[in-house]
Amino acid sequence: MRKKKKDIKKIIAGIDLGGTNVYMLLIDSKGKIYGEKHFPTLSEKGPDGVIENIILQLKDVVKKAGFNLKDIWRIGIGSPGPLDSKKGIIFGAVNLPGWKYVKLKEKIEKATGVKTGVDNDANCAIYGEKWLGAGKNFNNIIGLTLGTGIGGGIIIDGKLIRGTNYNAGEIGHMSINPEGIVCKCGAKGCYEQYASASAIANFAKEKIKKGAKTIITEIVKGDINKITSKTVYEALLNNDKLAKEIWDEFIKFLAAGIANLLNIFNPELIVIAGGVINAGDKLFIPLRQAVKKQTFEIIYNVAKILPAKLGERAGAIGAAGLMLFEGDFYEL
Amino acid sequence: MRKKKKDIKKIIAGIDLGGTNVYMLLIDSKGKIYGEKHFPTLSEKGPDGVIENIILQLKDVVKKAGFNLKDIWRIGIGSPGPLDSKKGIIFGAVNLPGWKYVKLKEKIEKATGVKTGVDNDANCAIYGEKWLGAGKNFNNIIGLTLGTGIGGGIIIDGKLIRGTNYNAGEIGHMSINPEGIVCKCGAKGCYEQYASASAIANFAKEKIKKGAKTIITEIVKGDINKITSKTVYEALLNNDKLAKEIWDEFIKFLAAGIANLLNIFNPELIVIAGGVINAGDKLFIPLRQAVKKQTFEIIYNVAKILPAKLGERAGAIGAAGLMLFEGDFYEL
Repeated sequence: MRKKKKDIKKIIAGIDLGGTNVYMLLIDSKGKIYGEKHFPTLSEKGPDGVIENIILQLKDVVKKAGFNLKDIWRIGIGSPGPLDSKKGIIFGAVNLPGWKYVKLKEKIEKATGVKTGVDNDANCAIYGEKWLGAGKNFNNIIGLTLGTGIGGGIIIDGKLIRGTNYNAGEIGHMSINPEGIVCKCGAKGCYEQYASASAIANFAKEKIKKGAKTIITEIVKGDINKITSKTVYEALLNNDKLAKEIWDEFIKFLAAGIANLLNIFNPELIVIAGGVINAGDKLFIPLRQAVKKQTFEIIYNVAKILPAKLGERAGAIGAAGLMLFEGDFYEL
Repeated sequence: MRKKKKDIKKIIAGIDLGGTNVYMLLIDSKGKIYGEKHFPTLSEKGPDGVIENIILQLKDVVKKAGFNLKDIWRIGIGSPGPLDSKKGIIFGAVNLPGWKYVKLKEKIEKATGVKTGVDNDANCAIYGEKWLGAGKNFNNIIGLTLGTGIGGGIIIDGKLIRGTNYNAGEIGHMSINPEGIVCKCGAKGCYEQYASASAIANFAKEKIKKGAKTIITEIVKGDINKITSKTVYEALLNNDKLAKEIWDEFIKFLAAGIANLLNIFNPELIVIAGGVINAGDKLFIPLRQAVKKQTFEIIYNVAKILPAKLGERAGAIGAAGLMLFEGDFYEL
């Protein structure tokens, strides 16, 4: 018996390709998840090895969910960049050795026979939050992912802002001090030098090198290279003075960038992703207070500042969502 | 004899309401100008006096162009704000004493019988440049007007970005230093404190008060309150050392903000308006060099940085253009 039309769902594979891990899931247009998998990227195998493994894992996920590859309507991939999201070509990626001008879209389409699109990981994560997470009921959203750097995604009137050659959203490289810390991009005072997870760790390392007394040193057993934002947060919870100082600085700078984005975009929502959001009220309450001081009341009053909801799944969900709602852009 | 259909043009009145002067013109959908007038705002007469005068002058312009008021299809007004562009209400304006919650759209419609829309002056000026000026062939444009402050206008995919409650584009209040100069908005380090025409004059005043030797003092005959950006520029042309120092600082900060806008929006065009652009190559050549250093090559390479072309007419032209192309927004 033929399936009734209403039973036929568009199943999309969403893949979040990271330097360390890959997150993969099968999802339909209603957001129902049919299968998912989390596995090491094996980046040491180079682009072809990584891609081969992804295909293998995809076939496994598809099979376990009771489908065939031909049941998959589209594949969406979130990838580190820089990349050309229109053509699905990765120009390079710091955490993916050997990835130089990799035609990811073409390779995946050839291996699977499924129409595929690629976008940068921050865009995908923010789009995921818009589709099924913290941004569900919003159309004007600025998203920030706080990690090693700061990734950004901008959604206006429900659509991702891409820019002239698809490089919009480099919010981590908005300078908040033209005479500030030199960034690896070459510019001075980039936002991510002050308000990323790495920035928290770096502030701590510097101050300890200068002789600051803190339990952070004990937590990492004297090896200051092991300090992460999590270490600083742990010390903060133990009422460590230095940790409090660093946390306050971080919030001040994070707020400065968010205030800028409010003044520029007058959005409905700022959504923040990354491990740091686990700090909850210890982050969001002082953050909102600091942002309020630096922007117009009329703009502040209509803007929510919320933590992301989808965690590690955000990128894969967003990559699938983009294929579903913005397929034209990827020429699918 | 009845006019043939092809002869019937949509004539729009574009009005740029400033604190000192009003610029008014009649323009059709092809950009042909049928009449124009420039007159003092008479802001001391308060909102009703100013509006009455505008209506009188409009009737005069219309008559001289050989039309009747009923031949005017729509009226577009650029006004200082803050304002509600959707409803056409001016909440207040520093340079228009007595303007508190003035229902400008309603008053003009009542007096003329012509559908009217209001938007902020910077949006109108940038939109004018997009329609008939420096931005004619571009769809992704960020515009800056450098004056007492810095006004901003953002055009993406050919449309003005408005924000949740129509306050997007406050680029002058993007902070470029969270520990910087306190702005009249209450925040620290706002862009307009560093890169507006007033900022140039303020830098000069401060340095002279601290004892700097410069021909600027001679130009203003010892009255440092008379220093404007133009004075500093005049001194620059005379190889004044202090003027050069101030000019270089100004360009550094102007570039920092533009680099941010490039990284955020990846636009095709940054268009800069205001008297300062008369400096030509002395501004734009070092500005482009400084911007290039602070943004990604892939983003810099597709972005032009150009002076505005329409001068004083930009706001009136843009106000008319918005009524023509974005009339739905104003519920016309």
